[in-house]
Amino acid sequence: MSNQSYMARALELAHRGRFTTSPNPNVGCVLVRDGDIVGEGYHLRAGEPHAEICALRMAGEKSRGSTAYITLEPCSYYGRTPPCCNALIDAGVRYAFIAMKDPNPQVAGRGLECLKKAGIKVSHGLMMSASEALNRGFLKRMRSGFPWIQLKLGSSVDGRIATSNGESQWITSIEARRDVQRLRAQSSAILSTSATVLADNPSLTVRYDELDLASQEIYPKGVLRQPIRIIIDSQNRITQEHQLINQPGETWLMRHMCDNTQWPDNVKQFNIPCHDGHIDLVSMLVLLGRKEINSVLVEAGSQFSGALLKAKVVDELIIYLAPKLIGDTGRGLCQIPEIKTLDDVLVLDFSDIKLVGPDVRLTLKPSHIIYT
Amino acid sequence: MSNQSYMARALELAHRGRFTTSPNPNVGCVLVRDGDIVGEGYHLRAGEPHAEICALRMAGEKSRGSTAYITLEPCSYYGRTPPCCNALIDAGVRYAFIAMKDPNPQVAGRGLECLKKAGIKVSHGLMMSASEALNRGFLKRMRSGFPWIQLKLGSSVDGRIATSNGESQWITSIEARRDVQRLRAQSSAILSTSATVLADNPSLTVRYDELDLASQEIYPKGVLRQPIRIIIDSQNRITQEHQLINQPGETWLMRHMCDNTQWPDNVKQFNIPCHDGHIDLVSMLVLLGRKEINSVLVEAGSQFSGALLKAKVVDELIIYLAPKLIGDTGRGLCQIPEIKTLDDVLVLDFSDIKLVGPDVRLTLKPSHIIYT
Repeated sequence: MSNQSYMARALELAHRGRFTTSPNPNVGCVLVRDGDIVGEGYHLRAGEPHAEICALRMAGEKSRGSTAYITLEPCSYYGRTPPCCNALIDAGVRYAFIAMKDPNPQVAGRGLECLKKAGIKVSHGLMMSASEALNRGFLKRMRSGFPWIQLKLGSSVDGRIATSNGESQWITSIEARRDVQRLRAQSSAILSTSATVLADNPSLTVRYDELDLASQEIYPKGVLRQPIRIIIDSQNRITQEHQLINQPGETWLMRHMCDNTQWPDNVKQFNIPCHDGHIDLVSMLVLLGRKEINSVLVEAGSQFSGALLKAKVVDELIIYLAPKLIGDTGRGLCQIPEIKTLDDVLVLDFSDIKLVGPDVRLTLKPSHIIYT
Repeated sequence: MSNQSYMARALELAHRGRFTTSPNPNVGCVLVRDGDIVGEGYHLRAGEPHAEICALRMAGEKSRGSTAYITLEPCSYYGRTPPCCNALIDAGVRYAFIAMKDPNPQVAGRGLECLKKAGIKVSHGLMMSASEALNRGFLKRMRSGFPWIQLKLGSSVDGRIATSNGESQWITSIEARRDVQRLRAQSSAILSTSATVLADNPSLTVRYDELDLASQEIYPKGVLRQPIRIIIDSQNRITQEHQLINQPGETWLMRHMCDNTQWPDNVKQFNIPCHDGHIDLVSMLVLLGRKEINSVLVEAGSQFSGALLKAKVVDELIIYLAPKLIGDTGRGLCQIPEIKTLDDVLVLDFSDIKLVGPDVRLTLKPSHIIYT
């Protein structure tokens, strides 16, 4: 097997952590000696052993003289666990292929240096772009301080989310809604607004039974992680009667002024500056980055979705289009302020198109994106 | 080679006529003797030899004892050319694989019977669905009397065709517009409205240089066929000053009452009954069927497009979506009357999705379609 094949296996292992590692990155590690895989591991959850440690434990004495394939630079500092660099050195690993550097300022090349100093031959950059794609949220947060923002929309093929009388359930298919469950499960947090909560009273949870079988296979029910529900609630309209307050996992209320209510322990309030009665988006996103939110899935109405797009803070737009036509009297997909001429139009690129049940899922990236 | 391979070759040949055979169907023929292809042919243009005749001419004496693979039942009557059945019999063809019966009431099984009576062994149904797909227009017209209707739309990904101030050129890409040239070139006619002509003054012609190279390869410039331009003009608003009147090929004006103007020879007027000031769609489509129009590409505005969809006369809907967002103030894709609840929504199925340059092309078929 080639170096690429071993690294591909490490990436596959890393991918298994995608529902659970937040706020940590997904990492996989393969140890090879004399052409045989002697150890494999991936990071499952923050606080639990890193991928390298799992692989070293499996290899035991066979790690001596082995080659390590790791999807992200090993840590060189004492965090929730001791540094993996030391473990690799102590175990006698001889070569290391590292897909990419960890932009975490606490690592940022120090891991590579540490291994080299100990006499390990280090190669860096093998399958880097696949490793980048694995950790879009973590990497953006480390590089920019902001979480990675994914905006989900759904409409008829003519861009309508409801009929003129407001009927909207269900325009997209059950398959599309199950696909959204997977998106939720992969996200650190789900972001919505009090307008949506007041209108639909959603739970905004991951419903394990609605995940596709491939996801369930790598995601045991016992380790189900509920993404944090973040609700923009500048006028303090959310009450304890709303469904999402009483769900497992945390709910964070983004408010201009916190109230004095005695909320359950899993509900937190945050003071965010306001402009013209609206929560300041940038201040909120900076806060989320500081709170170690890697990725945010936005599920909100046409007004907030349009405001996010206009503010150019969306990293990925996912639209589920149902093969239906509602016509011009239907309610539109997004309200984007101040688009009058073609020069004002928001320009994106399609990055993926896929049939999901009877619907089409379009994935778009704004052309302005720097961090991906 | 297998029977399937020879028929696939016949279908490939038939496909070469797709820009030129209207009002005739696309047909291909392969003659095989002792495992060798001894003759090949396809129908190029009405009035010119049919596929079988071309193949027999190429095979010459080698057609004796050969097996014929023909994509459509050979004709058994004297039309613009003598019947192909006689030619196949006279040439001594021994076996015939026919992909499908010709629903043309002048044939409709008589071709198969004729061959059988002459002692040719006939097999029918090999690769029938591929042959069906080749002649959607011709087959629908023969079976129902109506032409096959393809509706083309283009919009931003949120279903908007123009900004609030009416700017719309160009939302979709040059690649999408070239793809539309191919759709035009394949159609018997292009249908639009005086509203569109008055607003945009389009030529509605096939511009040969804008066809993709694969199309140009099978479509020599010398045989360029301009689809008939059919304009719904109930209030006689089209004048000789409009661009499309002075283009090569015919223009047909669908009017409530023809005027007495001395129009150029290639412009025809037709009287069509009106309801509430609108041309009666069904009467017009019946007329087009009688006039041997197999397929119609509709390129019109949101009002007429919506009316066609509402009337459920659209056989295929093609939407080019540009990766752009215009927002709720933009002008919508189609005005469909009387959709108030989800029960009124038009339901379709996606039959194809494809990237065309930076845009996505969605192909949909209404779920109600019987003839395809």
